[in-house]
Amino acid sequence: MRNYKIIVQYDGGRYSGWQVQKTTPDTIQGKIETVLGYLFNHPIEIAGSGRTDAGVHALGQVANFHLSEEDIALVIKDKNDTLEGIICSYLNAHLPKDIAIVSVTEVDERFHSRLSAKSKTYVYRIHTSDISNVFERKYVYDYPEKLDVSLMRKAASYLEGTHDFKSFCANRHMKKSTVRTIYSIEITETDSELVLSFTGNGFLMNMVRILTGTLIEVGSKRRDPASMPEILDALDRDAAGYTAPPQGLFLKEVYY
Amino acid sequence: MRNYKIIVQYDGGRYSGWQVQKTTPDTIQGKIETVLGYLFNHPIEIAGSGRTDAGVHALGQVANFHLSEEDIALVIKDKNDTLEGIICSYLNAHLPKDIAIVSVTEVDERFHSRLSAKSKTYVYRIHTSDISNVFERKYVYDYPEKLDVSLMRKAASYLEGTHDFKSFCANRHMKKSTVRTIYSIEITETDSELVLSFTGNGFLMNMVRILTGTLIEVGSKRRDPASMPEILDALDRDAAGYTAPPQGLFLKEVYY
Repeated sequence: MRNYKIIVQYDGGRYSGWQVQKTTPDTIQGKIETVLGYLFNHPIEIAGSGRTDAGVHALGQVANFHLSEEDIALVIKDKNDTLEGIICSYLNAHLPKDIAIVSVTEVDERFHSRLSAKSKTYVYRIHTSDISNVFERKYVYDYPEKLDVSLMRKAASYLEGTHDFKSFCANRHMKKSTVRTIYSIEITETDSELVLSFTGNGFLMNMVRILTGTLIEVGSKRRDPASMPEILDALDRDAAGYTAPPQGLFLKEVYY
Repeated sequence: MRNYKIIVQYDGGRYSGWQVQKTTPDTIQGKIETVLGYLFNHPIEIAGSGRTDAGVHALGQVANFHLSEEDIALVIKDKNDTLEGIICSYLNAHLPKDIAIVSVTEVDERFHSRLSAKSKTYVYRIHTSDISNVFERKYVYDYPEKLDVSLMRKAASYLEGTHDFKSFCANRHMKKSTVRTIYSIEITETDSELVLSFTGNGFLMNMVRILTGTLIEVGSKRRDPASMPEILDALDRDAAGYTAPPQGLFLKEVYY
């Protein structure tokens, strides 16, 4: 078996998230598996680097899948064609326009998009102006109030590092470890937007959105930056802030 | 009466164009007039710099309207408020998110957004890559074929200048003059996109889209660049190329 890695961009707006679910056909993984199934004439399962929630976007989601020599022989009809090129063109020709395959590359057979990932970067876009960004409006969270960025940066500094992030996890009954390391939280500011960039070794369910909601509460002076250690210590979802909505969130890059 | 100029951005995707029509409520002019009517308690008519077709976008559409001293007295309740600020905030708070008012300024009473305009720039975005631009897909025309830009530039040079553009006008029964001056047609190229930028003293019905369709036919070698003078001389819509679809077109700026 050979192993292929794909990098995927998507506008998650109309999907029920990345992962295949029995109850809905509208997942990004499902759309890609369906088209691969057409190409190879049998079901192909792909493994994503992680789930993204309903409505969340990706600039660089990563997935991988295996193909047999028979699969490969089936689609290579011209010796000048590369398998990677055939897969990439076929997927882009048959996927909806809100999903794009940026690259297809053969990787070591031991590569696994989730298990091999060393870290990930998510970005969250907050639109702070009263004036709508008409062309980007579906890719930002509209929050037309002044946020105090220096307070948000102070709070963020408490959250960087290795902590038990149970308070920032939507799954209250998570049995596995909720300890994660956030390498950095960077906040950049323009006239009309705040962009929060989170890089860490892994993120729990809704974790980036709960971190963002909590930092917004700090920026609007409803929470003290110095209260972050207490929130972490509580190990209780109710201690943290609200869950920011999905449309501002992008899985930007997965590092291996 | 005082005269106010507004600069408007919109995603035209779900509208029947700029201009109010009796048969549909979904025009950009109509949406703005409705909200101004709420603010001033009577109908306010606005004059746009020109119509944009159904599905066409704007980065800098310009319109103007008149207000009486009574209108102004009605809305200014605090001496620290400016009328421009009140109008801008009210419109942005009540318009749909796909229409934004970028600025409101008082102008000379003789200013008319259409009659005073000296020139306009439209841009047309052609996405030439096989890989969908998932976040911009509603703002480009997907044309995933190699276009010969040097041929397109050569054809464009024949179209610059003062000509009778009747062949590039969708209204075959236009009674007024179809002579216009195009000051420049610039074509910029990136890995995945061609952007055509047209600046002229005025544009006829569908003119930018027909110019674009004709230039695409040149770029794909279905038409000779040197045939442009014949097309102009024909004074016949059938002599020119197809009408490129609306979603790639933006009214970028109006100059006074």
